[in-house]
Amino acid sequence: MNTLRKYALNEIPHYKVHGRTVPGTCPLPLFFNGSAVELNVSGSELWADLEVSWQNLEIWVTIEVNGELMSRLMLAPGNHSLCLFRGMSGEPVKNVRITRETQAMLEDEDCCLIVHGFQTDGDFHPVPKGKYTLEFVGDSITSGEGTYGAKGDMDWIPMYMSYSRDYAKMTAEALGADAYIISKGGWGVLSGWDNNPDTNIPSRYEQLCGLCCGNKNESLGAFAPYDFTLRKTDAVIVNLGTNDASAFQQPAWHDPATGRTFKQRLNPDGTFVEEDLNRFEDAVVSFLKMLRKHNPQAHIIWCYGMIGYDLSFAINDAMIRYIRESSDHNVIYLQLPGLTEETVGSNNHPGEPSQRRTAQVLTEYLQDYFSKTSPAR
Amino acid sequence: MNTLRKYALNEIPHYKVHGRTVPGTCPLPLFFNGSAVELNVSGSELWADLEVSWQNLEIWVTIEVNGELMSRLMLAPGNHSLCLFRGMSGEPVKNVRITRETQAMLEDEDCCLIVHGFQTDGDFHPVPKGKYTLEFVGDSITSGEGTYGAKGDMDWIPMYMSYSRDYAKMTAEALGADAYIISKGGWGVLSGWDNNPDTNIPSRYEQLCGLCCGNKNESLGAFAPYDFTLRKTDAVIVNLGTNDASAFQQPAWHDPATGRTFKQRLNPDGTFVEEDLNRFEDAVVSFLKMLRKHNPQAHIIWCYGMIGYDLSFAINDAMIRYIRESSDHNVIYLQLPGLTEETVGSNNHPGEPSQRRTAQVLTEYLQDYFSKTSPAR
Amino acid sequence: MNTLRKYALNEIPHYKVHGRTVPGTCPLPLFFNGSAVELNVSGSELWADLEVSWQNLEIWVTIEVNGELMSRLMLAPGNHSLCLFRGMSGEPVKNVRITRETQAMLEDEDCCLIVHGFQTDGDFHPVPKGKYTLEFVGDSITSGEGTYGAKGDMDWIPMYMSYSRDYAKMTAEALGADAYIISKGGWGVLSGWDNNPDTNIPSRYEQLCGLCCGNKNESLGAFAPYDFTLRKTDAVIVNLGTNDASAFQQPAWHDPATGRTFKQRLNPDGTFVEEDLNRFEDAVVSFLKMLRKHNPQAHIIWCYGMIGYDLSFAINDAMIRYIRESSDHNVIYLQLPGLTEETVGSNNHPGEPSQRRTAQVLTEYLQDYFSKTSPAR
Amino acid sequence: MNTLRKYALNEIPHYKVHGRTVPGTCPLPLFFNGSAVELNVSGSELWADLEVSWQNLEIWVTIEVNGELMSRLMLAPGNHSLCLFRGMSGEPVKNVRITRETQAMLEDEDCCLIVHGFQTDGDFHPVPKGKYTLEFVGDSITSGEGTYGAKGDMDWIPMYMSYSRDYAKMTAEALGADAYIISKGGWGVLSGWDNNPDTNIPSRYEQLCGLCCGNKNESLGAFAPYDFTLRKTDAVIVNLGTNDASAFQQPAWHDPATGRTFKQRLNPDGTFVEEDLNRFEDAVVSFLKMLRKHNPQAHIIWCYGMIGYDLSFAINDAMIRYIRESSDHNVIYLQLPGLTEETVGSNNHPGEPSQRRTAQVLTEYLQDYFSKTSPAR
Repeated sequence: MNTLRKYALNEIPHYKVHGRTVPGTCPLPLFFNGSAVELNVSGSELWADLEVSWQNLEIWVTIEVNGELMSRLMLAPGNHSLCLFRGMSGEPVKNVRITRETQAMLEDEDCCLIVHGFQTDGDFHPVPKGKYTLEFVGDSITSGEGTYGAKGDMDWIPMYMSYSRDYAKMTAEALGADAYIISKGGWGVLSGWDNNPDTNIPSRYEQLCGLCCGNKNESLGAFAPYDFTLRKTDAVIVNLGTNDASAFQQPAWHDPATGRTFKQRLNPDGTFVEEDLNRFEDAVVSFLKMLRKHNPQAHIIWCYGMIGYDLSFAINDAMIRYIRESSDHNVIYLQLPGLTEETVGSNNHPGEPSQRRTAQVLTEYLQDYFSKTSPAR
Repeated sequence: MNTLRKYALNEIPHYKVHGRTVPGTCPLPLFFNGSAVELNVSGSELWADLEVSWQNLEIWVTIEVNGELMSRLMLAPGNHSLCLFRGMSGEPVKNVRITRETQAMLEDEDCCLIVHGFQTDGDFHPVPKGKYTLEFVGDSITSGEGTYGAKGDMDWIPMYMSYSRDYAKMTAEALGADAYIISKGGWGVLSGWDNNPDTNIPSRYEQLCGLCCGNKNESLGAFAPYDFTLRKTDAVIVNLGTNDASAFQQPAWHDPATGRTFKQRLNPDGTFVEEDLNRFEDAVVSFLKMLRKHNPQAHIIWCYGMIGYDLSFAINDAMIRYIRESSDHNVIYLQLPGLTEETVGSNNHPGEPSQRRTAQVLTEYLQDYFSKTSPAR
Repeated sequence: MNTLRKYALNEIPHYKVHGRTVPGTCPLPLFFNGSAVELNVSGSELWADLEVSWQNLEIWVTIEVNGELMSRLMLAPGNHSLCLFRGMSGEPVKNVRITRETQAMLEDEDCCLIVHGFQTDGDFHPVPKGKYTLEFVGDSITSGEGTYGAKGDMDWIPMYMSYSRDYAKMTAEALGADAYIISKGGWGVLSGWDNNPDTNIPSRYEQLCGLCCGNKNESLGAFAPYDFTLRKTDAVIVNLGTNDASAFQQPAWHDPATGRTFKQRLNPDGTFVEEDLNRFEDAVVSFLKMLRKHNPQAHIIWCYGMIGYDLSFAINDAMIRYIRESSDHNVIYLQLPGLTEETVGSNNHPGEPSQRRTAQVLTEYLQDYFSKTSPAR
Repeated sequence: MNTLRKYALNEIPHYKVHGRTVPGTCPLPLFFNGSAVELNVSGSELWADLEVSWQNLEIWVTIEVNGELMSRLMLAPGNHSLCLFRGMSGEPVKNVRITRETQAMLEDEDCCLIVHGFQTDGDFHPVPKGKYTLEFVGDSITSGEGTYGAKGDMDWIPMYMSYSRDYAKMTAEALGADAYIISKGGWGVLSGWDNNPDTNIPSRYEQLCGLCCGNKNESLGAFAPYDFTLRKTDAVIVNLGTNDASAFQQPAWHDPATGRTFKQRLNPDGTFVEEDLNRFEDAVVSFLKMLRKHNPQAHIIWCYGMIGYDLSFAINDAMIRYIRESSDHNVIYLQLPGLTEETVGSNNHPGEPSQRRTAQVLTEYLQDYFSKTSPAR
């Protein structure tokens, strides 16, 4: 082993950032689950210089070497030099990725993971782009809630969330694609699971990362408009609607501060109140327009069904309306395999087997789609 | 072995007929793929007395003993005594089923399989009803085309069709249900794959078996109205639309005799002509009304997608219209996993792995549905 | 379809016989499970002209087209023209195999299956040799007993035996090899399961087919010495010992006619009586010498363990003795996965999953062995 | 969350130590891969107080909650409070295990992992014993080398070793058993892979942990005789011989300090020199006697074959000799599935799929064995 040399991120000639970011940012915040730095590096040893902060909801990361998971760990607050590998033969170039496992946390204003740089005795080599560019937009399912933890464990804790066992990762890997993720547990298209009308993804989609909070994140640029021209998405996969369906079953949301209230209602016979269903559908139509605006050539896939099919017709109806209004046929509805006793994970959320089945449906569909449209670079 | 005794079907105290039939008919025609006689019988030996006729398209059957496939064979025309088992210990009661593998054949007016009776040295025991009653309505996919034969084999022949590897059988078995099948390769909801407007399933759904032809079948009552009150379906699974989608891609159908012509049209940009899409959707709405009329309490599942998703939005649109018009919410759309290189069978049709995946989707969905509605007897 | 032309087997320019036979024999007896005629034939239709006889134990066959199982059926006694396919496109060449499913039957002196010829409107094309030549020597496990029939079914009947779900077939197919089978349920190396000292495979190994009986089989040459120079085996797989282990647990065998008696004995503490174990080991050593004599270059694999490991040490001990005496190191012992509740079939014998696991062990071993020794032609 | 209370290990009323240890030791060294502390604890938070030291070869641990892997991480040298969980509902009792992933390291005299205690706001509950007690004795295979890391990665590093994907863990879990591990990469029965006659497991088997070195480990009692009466093993699984086979292929070992040399030799024809084979067999016989002495009632399973079958006959020969000499029949030879391209992991060692297949063979065998002998408590 030679002496390690310490590099600020912007001193490194070749590295790749996964997830939404501002190119060249240094130090680099990793806002989302799946956000990562990827390196191709020689040398016997590699360390990451990280700045970690959180109050209640801890941050987890994974370390992959040559595409294989080596480590999954919780990061304590503070500045850390984290060893990514050591003791290896110096000459071969290793592909290394350090990835944020846990979603952006609006519930903890300190929650923040920043990459300052790396230390190594090796050299950096170019990291190629993926064959395709995908964006996944979702809720707790896409945040991998339930993918760790035993069946029957019912806590809502970061430890049980992951990107490493998420369908988004599996799908991107199977296709050789780069993945962008924007997902937040409990959120919907029109409202959150509890009828909160503010916890809807479209309201934050256009920010770099509108799913966190606090001064620190603000100073890191999280709430600035995202520059969608930085990337050219081949497909946008939306997996939303599950919390909107839940809202119909939950009591009204009430904001004691403002007196504001919201409720998606059921008729006495258990069907959806038409007016409320319509505003959900309006939200879907609007979101499709927003997605199209920022992803002009992307194939938009609205997928749904891992936890109930209640809004399947409503989503289809909204998509049909969107197509009629826009004459945009580059959208499709994909139904996903429902959760079963065999595939459920912790906190009654999809476990790894459920995520794997969803990844299979998406992968097969996209393989077929791309084989016909050939966007591969 | 004792001497065999020959029983006409109507001399047998206990037997169960699977598939559409007129109760008590003797001799008994098995019109559809999946139509079968099931016995619980003791004795060392059992033979079936069959009458077989066909000209071009031969009839295949399977023999199952205690739920396991023992034999699959082509039947030559003529009267046969076919051995179902022999040499077994006399005392135990065996569950035996002889099942028609191949669909009703409009293309061969002689095609006909009739069970006259059985020969055995044993006794007959009651055969219980299934926990649920399902009807499957479909095309070549439901007729199991491609479930036998090698990948790449491209003949359209009865040998490559089956009930034994069909999703309908797998689903019914997994649920402990009785299955009724009405399916015909190439047919659709509005028209056949080749734009033939007469090869649509709704036009024959109300007959006992409108999917065969010829004097013999007529004399067996095939074309008489089916008495739907004979059974109470818990779910009707429709798997149609694939041939309607094909019609848009195929040349116009033309009947030289009458000069009649029919064509589902594409716009120059490849989208469906709205007027033609509408008449497809009208056909779906009408068929849903017909299905509801004859299956008043059944959960109606329209499933689609094993060979392309082209009409997914159209089917949903039609179902949404049907729900609005009828206020009947007891219907659902289920998307099925698309065909892949790994799951394709002969003649470019779904192979056994594809059928198995469809059966899994349906089984999981119905298990969940039945667990909430408890129709099990 | 053109008119069918009838060919005696010896009028056919190209055909391949699987299993032990005398080249050029016409009509052709198929003595063993796995014995088959394979054709590459064009045309729309193909029929086999068969002569079938049996009294108690019926003969089953399978029909494969392009490597896929199409039919499995019992053959009634008599002369039959059996349709192998019909209605196919005439031009493509189809690979077709008609295979005897059921083992040679000493228990039925009439039991006999003879191929006289074929009828077709097509032409015959050459059938290539396999990459390797394997011989499988065994008992009921190799005769596929239990591979058909439900778990818990306890009859000893031909219907429950097969070549189509046998590890020998699976292994040969996975390797692209030609397979010879000589196997008989209940037989051992030294004695049968019931201590019968005559039901040992080595005593019949050198006959063409010593595992049947009767004048008819005699007249077909079954009992003549087999000409081992006709083939060059790359590997001989012996799967024997299971019935020899059983003999230790069973009462003595007694021949009332001659007063002759035989018993493999246990000590009071449940261990094997050394003298009896020795004569078993002697039988193994002798059989290895016989196998080597007739298969001079073959890799000899003694595999064991699908139903108990009782004689594992004894077989190893005998093989070690054989190696010491002969300096022949071209032998190996392979232990097979034991039967479990999940893998058992009918009549407490290995079911298809058990046979598949054995095939995997053998295939992986042989792939590795052949990759190092390269006997592939 | 209440305030955390800090407990020295010996202040904790209920905890369970996995692996060889001296009961009541505090602080507690975890010497072996698989050595662990298991707790049943309520509370919202749990931390482990650890002392970690190493120079070259880092220590990895895993954290499991309710039987599911949550974290796998490298530990830096120093004293750490490591969070095992946080933010959970306080009331439910969680089963938690912190386990050493990496083997004892003779190559690094500082290598040492010591548990001082735990911190929690919850209470401790009893941890039941396993149904069975197993000891696994092995080499790099049992040390899980290759179970992490990509195929083709060729470094010998701790990161690529594990207990979490080891057959010993899988087998113990499937059986509900407690596992003891003693394994060291490169070691054999007679000599190491490189003919080093000192790197043989039997020479260290009787020490608490003879596979580490250094003053610190000595002071922790590692080299003291292990008190075998502390446990009653139901089965001892030996997986050794692979490195002994390698020695025959490798150059002679030579100790420059003493001039001592050692070599297991091949004859010119590639067979083993009989004298050398005999001393290997003697070593096996001696080791079996040692194992029996310290595990009087254990079923001893010698398993072999994951990387080559070269010494299969030799091991059997030695076992047969042992049985003859000792009249101890409570031993068995189990052959394991060989490594394939599909199942290989990093550094050409068995990957997780290979370890899983071995676990299946052992689990099925032991389930059957225990069902007949019923040692379950």
